[in-house]
Amino acid sequence: MARIVMKFGGTSVADLDRIRNVARRVQKETALGNQVCVFVSAMAGTTDQLVGWVEQMSPLHDAREYDTVVSAGEQITSGLLAIALQDIGVPARSWLAWQIPFKTNKVHSAARIEDIGVDEIIQRMDDGIVCVMAGFQGISDDNRITTLGRGGTDTSAVALAAAIGAERCDIYTDVEGVYTSDPRIVPQARKLDKITYEEMLEMASLGAKVLQTRSVAMAMNHKVRVQVLSSFTDKPGTMVVDEDEIVEKQVVSGIAYAKDEAQVILVGVKNKPGIASNVFSLLADGNINVDMIIQNETEDGKKTDITFTVPENDLDKAEKILNSAGNIEFDNLITDPNVVKISVIGVGMRSHAGVAATMFKTLADKGINIQVISTSEIKISVLIEADYAELAVRALHTAYGLDSE
Amino acid sequence: MARIVMKFGGTSVADLDRIRNVARRVQKETALGNQVCVFVSAMAGTTDQLVGWVEQMSPLHDAREYDTVVSAGEQITSGLLAIALQDIGVPARSWLAWQIPFKTNKVHSAARIEDIGVDEIIQRMDDGIVCVMAGFQGISDDNRITTLGRGGTDTSAVALAAAIGAERCDIYTDVEGVYTSDPRIVPQARKLDKITYEEMLEMASLGAKVLQTRSVAMAMNHKVRVQVLSSFTDKPGTMVVDEDEIVEKQVVSGIAYAKDEAQVILVGVKNKPGIASNVFSLLADGNINVDMIIQNETEDGKKTDITFTVPENDLDKAEKILNSAGNIEFDNLITDPNVVKISVIGVGMRSHAGVAATMFKTLADKGINIQVISTSEIKISVLIEADYAELAVRALHTAYGLDSE
Repeated sequence: MARIVMKFGGTSVADLDRIRNVARRVQKETALGNQVCVFVSAMAGTTDQLVGWVEQMSPLHDAREYDTVVSAGEQITSGLLAIALQDIGVPARSWLAWQIPFKTNKVHSAARIEDIGVDEIIQRMDDGIVCVMAGFQGISDDNRITTLGRGGTDTSAVALAAAIGAERCDIYTDVEGVYTSDPRIVPQARKLDKITYEEMLEMASLGAKVLQTRSVAMAMNHKVRVQVLSSFTDKPGTMVVDEDEIVEKQVVSGIAYAKDEAQVILVGVKNKPGIASNVFSLLADGNINVDMIIQNETEDGKKTDITFTVPENDLDKAEKILNSAGNIEFDNLITDPNVVKISVIGVGMRSHAGVAATMFKTLADKGINIQVISTSEIKISVLIEADYAELAVRALHTAYGLDSE
Repeated sequence: MARIVMKFGGTSVADLDRIRNVARRVQKETALGNQVCVFVSAMAGTTDQLVGWVEQMSPLHDAREYDTVVSAGEQITSGLLAIALQDIGVPARSWLAWQIPFKTNKVHSAARIEDIGVDEIIQRMDDGIVCVMAGFQGISDDNRITTLGRGGTDTSAVALAAAIGAERCDIYTDVEGVYTSDPRIVPQARKLDKITYEEMLEMASLGAKVLQTRSVAMAMNHKVRVQVLSSFTDKPGTMVVDEDEIVEKQVVSGIAYAKDEAQVILVGVKNKPGIASNVFSLLADGNINVDMIIQNETEDGKKTDITFTVPENDLDKAEKILNSAGNIEFDNLITDPNVVKISVIGVGMRSHAGVAATMFKTLADKGINIQVISTSEIKISVLIEADYAELAVRALHTAYGLDSE
C-alpha cells in the first residue's frame, strides 16, 4: 500500500463539476489500494479576485491581512472536495494549514515551510481516510495565516510528499505534461515521458510555467518523484525524476524562453577592485534578481562594460538605483526591455561536445544576433532581440531533433 | 475610555467602497476615544453562494465541511476591513475564530458559544488596536471550524461584548432601527428610540428579522446594551435595553407578523393522560419547533382536538411523523399552510387591561376570523388566514395609536 500525494490546480477545480471529476480521480487512486492525500488550489479566478480586492483596498497593504484574505480560496475548495468525495462513498475530511499544522516562517506572502505535523495525517491515511488539504497556506509561530506565493500549492504538495515519504506526487494541471517547448509556438513540440529535476528546474525558472520553481527544488532535495499530468485526460504525464532513473539521456530535452527580461549595460565603468560587487550588492539590496552577467574590459584596462539582465518589471527601479549610486562611476547607462532569453536545456550536454556550437550556428543561419551568452552545466542561454523569439525557438527545436514525426 | 463592539452585516460590507465606509465609521468611534472591536459578516451574497455550492455538491453534506466552506466569507471581509482601517491610519488587525479562540460546542452549523479567550483582545484594545473579528464562526474542541447559524454574527458580537464588558454593542444593518411594524406593509410605521430585550425577543422571533433571536436572548441575559442602526445614514438607531431604562413604557410597542407558519389540527384524539406529551415529544424528536398550542375537549370528554402551528418548511415532516406514530389515535389530521401569525407586543400590557379586547375587536370590525389565540405576558398572538395579513397589521397599528403623525 503506497502513499500518493495528488495536487489539483485552479483550472482542475474551477467549478462543481470539475471538483466532482477530481473526486472520481482520487477514488480511482484509492481503488488501486493506495493511501491518498490531496492538495487543492483555489477555484480558477478566485485568487485573482481576492488579490485584486486587497490591492484595490490598499496598494501598501499589510501582508498578514493579504494572506488572511487570499488563503480563503483554498479553504473553500478543500471543504467542497471533501464533500464531493464523501458523496461518492470515499471517506474524506479537509484540513487547513493551521489544523495540520503546516508551519512556515513569518515572511508573509512568500513564506517558507519549516515543519509539517504529519502524525495525524499519517494516522488518518492509515485509517483509510483521504486527507484533503488546503494548499498554498501555512501558519506562522505567532498563529497567523501565511501563504507560499503564487503557485505555492505545488510546493505544499511536494513538501508533504517528502514529509510522509510518499511514493509519488502527482501534479494535475491543464496540460498533459512537460513539453520539449511551448506548443503554442512550436506545433511539433513533444511531451516528455521523463525529465530530470535539474532540467525541470531550468525549465520552470525559464518561463515554462508548469510547476512552481520552489516545488521542483524541494522535490530534488528530497528525491520526491513528481508526475505532471492533465486532470482532463487519462494519459500518463511527465515524470520528474532523478538523473539515475533516465537510462537514455537526451542531449537536449527542451527549448525554453523567457520574455520578461530586460537588458542593462553600464558603459565605461571605472575599473577598480570591487566594482562588480558594488553594482550587484546595490541591486540585491533593492530586491532585484539579476540574471545573466557579462563583464568586458576595454583595451587599456582602465574601463569596463558590465552587461546583465533584470526582470522587466524591475527595470525602472534598477535604473534609479544605479543612477543614484554614489560609489559607481560610469559613462553611460543603456537599457533594452525588448529582449528575450532563449535556453537550450539538457543533462546530456555534460557529456556531449558541440551543443553550444549547434545553437550559435542555428541562430546565425537565421540571421539572429546574439547579445549575451551564459551557460551552466546543463543549459545554454542567449539573449536576443524579442522579435526573433518564435523563429529562434522553432529553429532550435528542429536543430536538436526534438520535432515530433 | 469605553469599549464598544460594532457589528456590520452583509449589505454594509457588500463591496470595497462600503468596507471603506465601515472603516470611516470605526475611525469616528475611535476618534471619540473609544476602544473598538468590530465584527463583520460576509460580503452580501457570498454566504448564499457558498451555501449553494455545498448543497449542490451534496444535499446530505458533512456539516463540518459545510462550516469550513461557508466560514471563508467572513475571513475575507475581516482581512479587507483591517486593510481598509490601516489605509486610513487606524491601527487594526483581523482575528479568525480559531485565533481568538472563540470556542463553541460541536453542533456544526448551529453551534453554541462556550468560551471566548478575551485576554489578547483586551490587551490589544488597550494598546489602541482596532480588533477586527470574523463573525459567525467558532472553533470546536477538536479543532474544527464551527458556525453559529445564519445571522450568527449578531450573536458573535453580543457574546464578545458581554465577555469584555463593553459599554455598547452597535449592530449596523441596512435599516435605521427597529420599527413599530414592517414599513413595507405599514407606511406609517415609526422607528422606536428604545425597546426592551423582552419586546425585541418577541419581535425577532416573530419575523422582524433585524437581529438574530439568539443574540437578543444573550444580550438580555448579560445586560448588554444593543443598538440597531443603519450603516448608510448618520441617524441614531434603536437602543435595545433593560426595562428599567425605559421610563414611559408603551402599552404596545409593535405589531409583528410571521408568514412561515402552518396550522395542524389533530381531530378526535382519544383523550388519555399523556396524549399531548406523546404528540409533542414525537415532534421534538423530529427537531420540529412547535409554536401555538390549543387543546379542546369534546363534550363527552372522551376525545379532544389538538391544534398547533409548526414552521411551514416542516409541515410535511410533521404530517409523516404523526401519521406513522403508533401511540397516538385520532380521527383526522387537518393541515393549513395558508395562515399568518399576527402579534401585538409591549411590556406595558402587563399593567394595562383591555389590550387583548382591542385586538379582537379591531380584527372583528374588519371581518377577520381568528383561528388560534396564544398569549404571553407581553404579547398576544393570533393565527388568521394569510390573505388578511397586511389588512390586519395595518388596522392594529392604527388601533394601538402607533401610526406616525
